[in-house]
Amino acid sequence: MSQTEQRPDLAKLLWPRTVAVVGASPDTESLRGRIMKVMTGHPFAGTLYPISRSHAEVMGLKAYPSVADLPVPADLAVLIIPAQHVPAELERCGKAGVRSAVVLSSGFAEASGGQGAGLQDEMRAVVKRYGMAVMGPNSEGFANTASALCPTFSPAVEPSERPLLPSGRERGQLAVIAQSGGIGFSFFDHGRAKELAFRYVVTTGNEACLETLDFADFVLDEGKVSALLMLLEDVKSPETFRRVAEKALKAGVPIVVNKIGQSEAGARAAASHTAALAGSYDAHRAMFERYGFIEGRDLGEMVDIAVGFVAFGSRLPAGRRVGICTASGGGGGWMADACAAAGLEVPQLDDATRANIDVHLPAYGTSQNPVDATAQALHKIGYAGLAELVIPSPAIDSVIVVMTARNAANLERQREALTRLAAQTTKPILLWSYTLPAPASVKLLSEAGYPLFTDIPNCTRTLRAMVDYRALRDRFVRPIEVRTPLDVDRATVQKALETSGRVLCEWEARPVLAAYGIGANAVGVLAGSAGAALAAAQDIRGAVALKVQSPDIAHKTEAGAVMLGLTSRDEVRLAYDRVLDNARRHAPGARVLGVLVQPMAPPGREVIVGIKRDDTFGPMLMVGLGGVQVEVFKDIALAPLPLSEEDARGMLDRLEGAPLLGAFRGRPPADIEALVDLMVRLGQFASDHADTIAEIDLNPVLVHDLGTGVSVVDALIVKR
Amino acid sequence: MSQTEQRPDLAKLLWPRTVAVVGASPDTESLRGRIMKVMTGHPFAGTLYPISRSHAEVMGLKAYPSVADLPVPADLAVLIIPAQHVPAELERCGKAGVRSAVVLSSGFAEASGGQGAGLQDEMRAVVKRYGMAVMGPNSEGFANTASALCPTFSPAVEPSERPLLPSGRERGQLAVIAQSGGIGFSFFDHGRAKELAFRYVVTTGNEACLETLDFADFVLDEGKVSALLMLLEDVKSPETFRRVAEKALKAGVPIVVNKIGQSEAGARAAASHTAALAGSYDAHRAMFERYGFIEGRDLGEMVDIAVGFVAFGSRLPAGRRVGICTASGGGGGWMADACAAAGLEVPQLDDATRANIDVHLPAYGTSQNPVDATAQALHKIGYAGLAELVIPSPAIDSVIVVMTARNAANLERQREALTRLAAQTTKPILLWSYTLPAPASVKLLSEAGYPLFTDIPNCTRTLRAMVDYRALRDRFVRPIEVRTPLDVDRATVQKALETSGRVLCEWEARPVLAAYGIGANAVGVLAGSAGAALAAAQDIRGAVALKVQSPDIAHKTEAGAVMLGLTSRDEVRLAYDRVLDNARRHAPGARVLGVLVQPMAPPGREVIVGIKRDDTFGPMLMVGLGGVQVEVFKDIALAPLPLSEEDARGMLDRLEGAPLLGAFRGRPPADIEALVDLMVRLGQFASDHADTIAEIDLNPVLVHDLGTGVSVVDALIVKR
Repeated sequence: MSQTEQRPDLAKLLWPRTVAVVGASPDTESLRGRIMKVMTGHPFAGTLYPISRSHAEVMGLKAYPSVADLPVPADLAVLIIPAQHVPAELERCGKAGVRSAVVLSSGFAEASGGQGAGLQDEMRAVVKRYGMAVMGPNSEGFANTASALCPTFSPAVEPSERPLLPSGRERGQLAVIAQSGGIGFSFFDHGRAKELAFRYVVTTGNEACLETLDFADFVLDEGKVSALLMLLEDVKSPETFRRVAEKALKAGVPIVVNKIGQSEAGARAAASHTAALAGSYDAHRAMFERYGFIEGRDLGEMVDIAVGFVAFGSRLPAGRRVGICTASGGGGGWMADACAAAGLEVPQLDDATRANIDVHLPAYGTSQNPVDATAQALHKIGYAGLAELVIPSPAIDSVIVVMTARNAANLERQREALTRLAAQTTKPILLWSYTLPAPASVKLLSEAGYPLFTDIPNCTRTLRAMVDYRALRDRFVRPIEVRTPLDVDRATVQKALETSGRVLCEWEARPVLAAYGIGANAVGVLAGSAGAALAAAQDIRGAVALKVQSPDIAHKTEAGAVMLGLTSRDEVRLAYDRVLDNARRHAPGARVLGVLVQPMAPPGREVIVGIKRDDTFGPMLMVGLGGVQVEVFKDIALAPLPLSEEDARGMLDRLEGAPLLGAFRGRPPADIEALVDLMVRLGQFASDHADTIAEIDLNPVLVHDLGTGVSVVDALIVKR
Repeated sequence: MSQTEQRPDLAKLLWPRTVAVVGASPDTESLRGRIMKVMTGHPFAGTLYPISRSHAEVMGLKAYPSVADLPVPADLAVLIIPAQHVPAELERCGKAGVRSAVVLSSGFAEASGGQGAGLQDEMRAVVKRYGMAVMGPNSEGFANTASALCPTFSPAVEPSERPLLPSGRERGQLAVIAQSGGIGFSFFDHGRAKELAFRYVVTTGNEACLETLDFADFVLDEGKVSALLMLLEDVKSPETFRRVAEKALKAGVPIVVNKIGQSEAGARAAASHTAALAGSYDAHRAMFERYGFIEGRDLGEMVDIAVGFVAFGSRLPAGRRVGICTASGGGGGWMADACAAAGLEVPQLDDATRANIDVHLPAYGTSQNPVDATAQALHKIGYAGLAELVIPSPAIDSVIVVMTARNAANLERQREALTRLAAQTTKPILLWSYTLPAPASVKLLSEAGYPLFTDIPNCTRTLRAMVDYRALRDRFVRPIEVRTPLDVDRATVQKALETSGRVLCEWEARPVLAAYGIGANAVGVLAGSAGAALAAAQDIRGAVALKVQSPDIAHKTEAGAVMLGLTSRDEVRLAYDRVLDNARRHAPGARVLGVLVQPMAPPGREVIVGIKRDDTFGPMLMVGLGGVQVEVFKDIALAPLPLSEEDARGMLDRLEGAPLLGAFRGRPPADIEALVDLMVRLGQFASDHADTIAEIDLNPVLVHDLGTGVSVVDALIVKR
């Protein structure tokens, strides 16, 4: 949603004082009645107006035949009527001064065939005309727990003894924003059982007008939540995504996300071209990585991660080192294995800390790490006492207590000590109960300020996410690294790009790239005849390569239009004819500029660096280790532009084959800094000419040993 | 536990009719009182005898001063007394005719320093003398739910309203056997909440006498359980492991296991020698893979896997293709992503099935897969009706129903249809509820015969485990492939091995390996002088390799004692002196047999094949893709002997780099069958001479293109 004069007012939608329910019914077997039952069952302080043509009263409330007949214009209209009537009803709402709506009706763009998509366009046009804030269609509504307003038929928020917000001591809040209604309210369902305090549950449905990120924007501006849970099907506005993601990261509010539809986008082609290698889900992941979104694989896992951040989001661990303490040797060992699997470390504690712990342990306990205090010691000092002994160790950044939370009475005796410890600690303390906790234990430990887990990988995954989020945010809020901007004559490059054809072969691409300092070290000579090729080869020491140059042949090697490692006059002469023959056979009628004669590049580790234009997020830079690693294992990293040196280094670290750039088999490490420099330069080139460029392939790039740079062996630019 | 005359009788331990509790106390604040409270709280049909020096009666039961004073010898003695008194008490038990014991006391081998280890040895000696069946020490006891016997102080089986076995319709049973007491009973705790019927919970503690696998053996012989949950810290007897694992696989009783201590064993050296590459956990995994043990990462996950097998263990899916049906588009999409992540397939349904489904769907539903029936259609046909429409599709092997099990009343209406469907279906049906299920829903669906999941990855992981287990078991029960046994003069080879030194360098190793048809195609000539080397090189077409042969230099390349690709007389002459110089510098005083002159092997994909002796399980075969793949990524597969061709192929499939052996970059696939043949031959060599051999390295082996065989380029044998 761009910032226009008529920007819709989400406060009217989420915080209305007057709400009209269009289609309200007293029949609680129908959705129209169930919504009324849910809404009237909570102590909403504003006014509800049922709108019904057939009833004068619905569940004790006076009903009106139309929104036009209300005593005052409603802030919010909730529409639960057949799809075909929705556009006209919204028109009526607009005229009556209603500023916002929730459209629960189905049968719009999600319906195959028929008129659904047309109805959605119609609806969007009406909404735009009146500048209304509209959720849906095909939404399941929302819940605003602070105002006890639940315009939804979701059973998850049906009135019950359990309050919408956990009772007792006030806790940090979070919000759920999901396209899917069923799943959106399931987050609430799972989280409530863990004593999470949800400020909002918002389900956006088809997002004809407002999308997930618009609601996130509003919630972040309020500044009242410490985490967001999000289920994304697609991103409609990349600008909104970037703005909101940046806002969340600045505020330190983590976004825990699942992107539906990963597997559909997962099919990748076998060819090693940037555009074919990276799919749409890869682009989403690249955006998530850039902004520190935490990807979840499961509802319960995502809720658990939120539980961790709500409790200790302001005191995230400084590193990966964990102290584990327990009275169960088996439980501690299992947790240590799980920590290692999650990339966390379980180092031995320092001697001073161990000496302090040992005072309390019997002979069959151990203070190394995991600390197995035994049931006997635990009985004396309690879980808080045990954790307090471990926390001061300089060897660790966080603590996991492996416990049993079955018996709430046991914990009740420790409540005060636990509460004090949670308030005081600067290192986060996570609890894993290997027994199923009693509901009273869950409540007690939540009130005391701890995240309690019943699933081991969820616990270690949460801690790892906390470590990574802190590191990413620390980098993000740090003053931006100063890099001398490239001294480039952008206008000249832009003009060269504009005057060229759609595809720039190596000979054409090299000069424009060289202006950005990319691959300027080896250009070669374009030969128009075998004689010219021989002459050029003679000027070169060592072996040469011959490559046909044609804007109509993007992938020369596959066309047989390249021959490498030629060492004699005879070889060069034969090769000249051969590559031209092959090129003509491969692409009859191709315009051939000539044959490029180049020195063979010195050996190096093969890399592919490229630019790909994602349909949603625009240009992205890709890097992969060449040859087997990218062709067989599809081992690539993708990142949005602009790209800093740190971003580029991060991309290389994310490659599974990253160790191949290091020292091995007696070889020194590769010149990673030269590769990073190349990536940043290519990123700037692509940013500067984003409107012109569809794809760039530097393939292969050879990364030479430390201190000896990189060679761009081939280059290709495709314009939009 | 080897099969001796005095084999302890586990029936006396697990099914006693008379039980003495030595150390019983009426003080329920102490463990000695808690165990009495637990034991007397269940309707055990046998007789309990408290043994106490200070009380004449404990909790209404007459107490005796000693086991010797009982009216009849107890079948089982439960010892909860200080460690130092345990050996004497067991002696007393033995004399009194007590045939079994559970030792709950701590302070034995698990205690650091002091006399714990000595006490454990003493205890073992007494037990052996009397042939008693003994669990522990440091055990938390066990539960036998069928006889309502719980000699344990674990709060998990404290008497409560909830029965030990789920009420209602009878369901398949399972057993837990764990070294850790806390974790062992936690499986029960988690499983009971999912309506699992546990026949036994056994916690084995330090396993001074009986180990986990001994109990598994007993339980399998009874034939009453359809799954085993196991927590293993170590394996004491590899023979028992093999025997029991085979028995379980034959019976089709899956063993779901977690091995504690994975991370400690995870540190691998960088060198590419078989022994250094594979750790102790790798050997355990190799055994698990051979026998189809299912490894779990989490308590809840393992319980979920068991839930799946208990429900559909006799109707496992024939393949990976899943039909997903739901009324939640978001839920279905999420499940489809999770299936893909677990290596399952979600194919489009066939047209006939789709046509049958479409009859019931509104326009905004879809029958492709996931089938999104919409709430409207679901309301009419119910979950059973929906699944019944999907099941007949020939495109799928199993069904996942994405549902909401929040409302038990809704499901109650569908109970009959659901029960009938579960009984009739030949394809397994798994349920995932995205809302938290009501306890009554859990009970209902369990009684109806379904596995119900609340965690998405646990659901897909279970289904994948079911697919894999069926495939492995089908192979296992199939008649063994007939492979002509190698025509080998074992005695001669054995003699050659016996008369050689501890290390057999390539020259010495080749003849013994060649007797098994291993690497017989390229032996070379051992030269004792530069002249002899020159003469040998002259007889070879193409480049040659020179390698110093010395039993004192195991790793020649690192010593600089190898030179490759020599093409001229001068090169050979210089190389001869160089390799000898390097060898002498590397290992002064090494016995040098000569310099081996060999033709260079034709190019091929580099592989390492070796034998390593695991401390627990004995000789194992290892294979890894050579060079980068094994050195940088530690990408190896390990398997126990004997090794069939199918096993060997399975090992190659498990390599992450498996695609590197296939066709790529225009190259034909490698000669995998020749590699498989080599692996099987090496396996037979190592089996035949298992007592002699510590380690074998064939490194590298070059696998040539399809149909052109393999070359064993170097070989090394190390004796025990």
